[in-house]
Amino acid sequence: MRFTSERRLDDGVLEREFTLGEIPGILWTPGPASASAPVPLILLGHQGGLKRMYPRLVARARHSAAEGFASAAIEMPGSGDRPRWADAEQARADLRRALDAGGPVGEEIIDRLILPLVDKVVPETRAALDALLALPEIGGPVGYSGGVIAIGVRLAVVEPRILAAGLFAGSFVPRATLEEARKVTIPLHVLLQWDDEENDRQAALNLFDAFGSKEKSLHANMGGHTGVPPWAGDAAGRFFVRHLRRPPATSGQPADTDSGR
Amino acid sequence: MRFTSERRLDDGVLEREFTLGEIPGILWTPGPASASAPVPLILLGHQGGLKRMYPRLVARARHSAAEGFASAAIEMPGSGDRPRWADAEQARADLRRALDAGGPVGEEIIDRLILPLVDKVVPETRAALDALLALPEIGGPVGYSGGVIAIGVRLAVVEPRILAAGLFAGSFVPRATLEEARKVTIPLHVLLQWDDEENDRQAALNLFDAFGSKEKSLHANMGGHTGVPPWAGDAAGRFFVRHLRRPPATSGQPADTDSGR
Repeated sequence: MRFTSERRLDDGVLEREFTLGEIPGILWTPGPASASAPVPLILLGHQGGLKRMYPRLVARARHSAAEGFASAAIEMPGSGDRPRWADAEQARADLRRALDAGGPVGEEIIDRLILPLVDKVVPETRAALDALLALPEIGGPVGYSGGVIAIGVRLAVVEPRILAAGLFAGSFVPRATLEEARKVTIPLHVLLQWDDEENDRQAALNLFDAFGSKEKSLHANMGGHTGVPPWAGDAAGRFFVRHLRRPPATSGQPADTDSGR
Repeated sequence: MRFTSERRLDDGVLEREFTLGEIPGILWTPGPASASAPVPLILLGHQGGLKRMYPRLVARARHSAAEGFASAAIEMPGSGDRPRWADAEQARADLRRALDAGGPVGEEIIDRLILPLVDKVVPETRAALDALLALPEIGGPVGYSGGVIAIGVRLAVVEPRILAAGLFAGSFVPRATLEEARKVTIPLHVLLQWDDEENDRQAALNLFDAFGSKEKSLHANMGGHTGVPPWAGDAAGRFFVRHLRRPPATSGQPADTDSGR
C-alpha cells in the first residue's frame, strides 16, 4: 500500500489517496479532535468509479469521521482508472437492454453481472483490509457499508473482521446470494428504497428474510434510487456507532441505547 | 375534562389522571426544564387497559417529555375500568380460537374485531384532543403513536390536527383499512416486527405500500411482538422531533436534519 496524496479537509479529516498494487483507493481518518487512535474502520462500498462517486463517498466519510471512525474505498474492477473489463461491460449492456425493454431481468444476466464482480472484489477488499489494519492509526473493529449487496453478503460470510454491515437493497440479487445470505450472522442494517423502479422489491424482502442474523433491521423509505432521506443515512450511522464504538459512549449521542423501553 | 390526580415524576414530568365523561385518561407534560409552553402533543395509542399498559406508556411519555412533548392516553372502550363490551370480547375470543387452531384468521373475524373499535375510539380520541388542546400548556402540533394500526389510519385520514403518525404494524388489518390507507397523506413512521408470529407480515407490507403519504418509512426489526429494540423506539422518537418540533432545533439532537447527504 502506497500513499500518493494527502490533504486535510476543512473539518480536520485527513484524506489520503493510495494504491494497493494496481488498485486505487482513498482513506479518510478523523481529525485529532474526534479520534482516539487506533480507530474503527468502515469499508465504503459503491457502484464503481471513485471519481464519479467521490462527492457521496466523502460525505459518508466525513459523517463517519465525526463519530471517530476511519473510512476507506477502493476502485471496483473495470471502473474508473482501472483496466476495462469486457465481460462486465457486456453484462451491463445486456442489463440496460433488458430494463429498457421493460421486462423482468433474467437470472442469467443478473448472475453474469454480479457473481464475477463478487469473486473479484471480495479478495481485493480483504487485501485492502490487511493493509489498512496494518496502519497504526487504524485498529478495527471493521464495518462494511453500502455498495453492491451481493458483495456485502459475501464479505459478511467470509471476512470475520467485519463485525457489522449496513447494506443497500438496491441492486440485483443472484439466487446464489439469496442462499449465501442464510450464512450471515453479523448485525445488519438494510436500507430499501421502496419505490425504486430499478429495484426488485420482492427480491429485496426475500433477501432480508433470508439473512441468518439475529439482529437485522430493514429501513424502507420513499424517494427513488438515489433519494435516501438524510435521516435514513443518520440512522445507518447510529447503527455503526452501536456496533463499532468499543468503549461505552460517555458523551456524544448515547440515545440509541439508553431507552427505557 | 376533569383532572382527578396529579403527581410529579422523578424526571420532572407532571402526570395527571383525568376523566373525559366516562373515559379515564392520563396526561403527561414535560418538566419546566425541557418545556417551552405551549408544547406539542403525542397521542399514545395502545391495546387497551391503561393500568396494565402503564409501564410502557409512561416510558414512552418520559421519552417524549425529554423532547419537549406532552403525551396523553385514554382508555379503550371495553377495557380497564370501562364497561365490558360483549361484542368485542366475543370477537377477541373468536380470534384467539382461530390463532390457537393455527389457521389463517378470517376476514370476518378481523372486521368484527377491529372496525367497531375504530368507529368508537376515533370520535373519543378527537373529543379528548379538543379538551387537551384547550389546556393552555398544550398547543400542538399533534402526533399519533402506536396502538391498533386501523385506528391510526382512520385518525390520520379524518383528524387534520394530527400532522404525523408513528404506527405499529402488529395488529390485524381489515380490508377497509387497506383501502382507507390510500387516503393518508401525513408523514408516517411504521414499525414492523418481522418475526412476529401473530402478525401477518404480508398484510403489513401491503398496508405500508398502500399509504398515500409522500414521506413514509418502514422499520422492520427482529424480536417478536413485544421485542421492539430500543434503538427502533428512539428512531420513532426522532421522527416526531422532525415533524412536531416547531422552532428549528438550536440545541439538543439536531442530527436528523443536519446531514450533508
